[in-house]
Amino acid sequence: MEIERRDLLLSAAALTVGMAAPTLAASPRKLGYAIIGLGYYGLGVIIPQFRNCAHSRLAAVVSGDPAKAKRVAAEHGLPARSVYSYADFDRIRDNPDVDIVYVCLPNAMHAEYTIRAAKAGKHVLCEKPMAVSVAECEAMIAACKTANRKLMIGYRCHFEPYNLEAMRLARTGAAGKIRYVRSEHGFVQRSPDAWRLKRALAGGGSLMDMGVYSLQAARYMTGEEPVAVTARESTDRRDPRFTEVEDMIDWTLEFPSGALGGCQSMYSANQNRILLMGDKGRIELEPATRYNGNRMWVGEDGREKAITPPRASARNQFVGQLDHMARCAATGHEPIVSGEEGLRDMRIVEAIYRSAREGRTIRLDGRA
Amino acid sequence: MEIERRDLLLSAAALTVGMAAPTLAASPRKLGYAIIGLGYYGLGVIIPQFRNCAHSRLAAVVSGDPAKAKRVAAEHGLPARSVYSYADFDRIRDNPDVDIVYVCLPNAMHAEYTIRAAKAGKHVLCEKPMAVSVAECEAMIAACKTANRKLMIGYRCHFEPYNLEAMRLARTGAAGKIRYVRSEHGFVQRSPDAWRLKRALAGGGSLMDMGVYSLQAARYMTGEEPVAVTARESTDRRDPRFTEVEDMIDWTLEFPSGALGGCQSMYSANQNRILLMGDKGRIELEPATRYNGNRMWVGEDGREKAITPPRASARNQFVGQLDHMARCAATGHEPIVSGEEGLRDMRIVEAIYRSAREGRTIRLDGRA
Repeated sequence: MEIERRDLLLSAAALTVGMAAPTLAASPRKLGYAIIGLGYYGLGVIIPQFRNCAHSRLAAVVSGDPAKAKRVAAEHGLPARSVYSYADFDRIRDNPDVDIVYVCLPNAMHAEYTIRAAKAGKHVLCEKPMAVSVAECEAMIAACKTANRKLMIGYRCHFEPYNLEAMRLARTGAAGKIRYVRSEHGFVQRSPDAWRLKRALAGGGSLMDMGVYSLQAARYMTGEEPVAVTARESTDRRDPRFTEVEDMIDWTLEFPSGALGGCQSMYSANQNRILLMGDKGRIELEPATRYNGNRMWVGEDGREKAITPPRASARNQFVGQLDHMARCAATGHEPIVSGEEGLRDMRIVEAIYRSAREGRTIRLDGRA
Repeated sequence: MEIERRDLLLSAAALTVGMAAPTLAASPRKLGYAIIGLGYYGLGVIIPQFRNCAHSRLAAVVSGDPAKAKRVAAEHGLPARSVYSYADFDRIRDNPDVDIVYVCLPNAMHAEYTIRAAKAGKHVLCEKPMAVSVAECEAMIAACKTANRKLMIGYRCHFEPYNLEAMRLARTGAAGKIRYVRSEHGFVQRSPDAWRLKRALAGGGSLMDMGVYSLQAARYMTGEEPVAVTARESTDRRDPRFTEVEDMIDWTLEFPSGALGGCQSMYSANQNRILLMGDKGRIELEPATRYNGNRMWVGEDGREKAITPPRASARNQFVGQLDHMARCAATGHEPIVSGEEGLRDMRIVEAIYRSAREGRTIRLDGRA
């Protein structure tokens, strides 16, 4: 009965993703997270979220900076044994406080630490992009499967109230037949020294960073898998920021319904937008995928009607994501954004790069 | 002196296009226009503008519907000799009241009537798209050159206050270095019987209609000529509206500066938007190119600041266009949107179709 009740609760949570109020909590204890990577995202964005979680708590930190790790641990009341370096990370297998490892490292380190975490018997929440190649994604999925651990990708928009409401409206025909989804994501990357501009760490440029939001948006707004992609890149290689990775990339996805996805990412202008156009109207988000302050409109011909999703003010995409993974780890359910979802994106990312390189349309459905 | 004064006035008008107030008029008389095609645009949109023109007046009508032509002529006080059918149109050479022929016919008739008008010794204002092929555009330019007559294309956005102000802001660096121009234009084409859906009349689908606005916007917002284009098309050929022409087409233009132009047109959703993204901010128009009601914003990160161009309420793109052509015809100046400008677009349009057909990038600069 208890398992059935959990299943029901989880199903409800999956439908109204991340919407389950803390009072519905059925877990006997909060699951423990180890955060790997105490950079801006891990330390500045994720760790502060645990205070609002119903099913998740901070249990350990992993960092290359012992002083920083010690300070963060002290601030959050973690015992000394729950502070790890990259070298001794594998000892985490012996730490019963840690159920889930959340990989907040540069892209090129995702595969290694996901696989090491799985081998240590931990579930893994890995930031997007899942890794820097399809081969790495496949190895990560295999490692988690072998270890019988869950693997989830940090696609936070699947827990963000505006994006969830936009998906719901798209599915229920609020815009009519979906013809075109547009998504643009970019920001001005100012420092030439940022790890995101180093190929060895980032695996690519804006596509591997903001581009994943555009790609995800085209997929979750249409609810379809693309069958072909055509891409163009534009990068000023004399700009010291862009000696290793691309600045700007533009791609068109073709979906089985005939809908097109027009996507873009860049490191030389600020932009954050999703627009769905259907034969009866549109759904627009701008900003669309920020940490907060997102906005949405639904209308026949523009921004006639601003939409505030139910419980938008009460919900938080980061908390929703952390607790969803904790519930999946506890109940054995598959995360709604699994490793397979990350792999799907990475297959398309590789095709986007290939299309831009070769100047031709690349099929994604195996057709010639 | 009179000629010099006219030149100065025309130069000022060219700078603040269409902005010259009627009181500056130096023309001894209004030039006479013959309107060919009394459909929605010619009859419903253009003819009512003459009452506000400083340099232009309605002088003749040409129609395949004698009763309609007679009624319109009577309403506007035109003599019987200034009413023409397509068959007797060439007699217009003997009508001294007519200086300029404005071709408001379906696309596939533009070339024939432009050439016949030039041969009749008249200047020509031809609606966009200029024609249905590069070869036709070249023949039109040649015919007007031989006849020593001016040829202008009805690119009304070059006389629309919001678009003019957007161009000015783009050139003066209001958004910083221009990285990306996005333009989407579409509407739901409901009737399968519309001439715009017949290949023999329209020469193509949404690209030949709304797509020209997107293409123009990418060119006049960047101020550059594209060097390559990559396009994809999506059309439901089972839809009775789209048995002959395309519904939706998406293309990426590459400009010499490295800026990209992401353009789109469609007949299955409403959209009308131009967005310029630069490294310091953006310029956005939505709706961008409507007959009226256009709006514009300039901002670092969205729609922070709504812009109303100087004299926007006093100016009208249709009047500006008609009077500009009249002044060019009177003074011998080249129109700011000449036949060469229409030809440039048609070369790109042919490359867009070719790229979509062949699934590869097409160079526009002659490079391999």
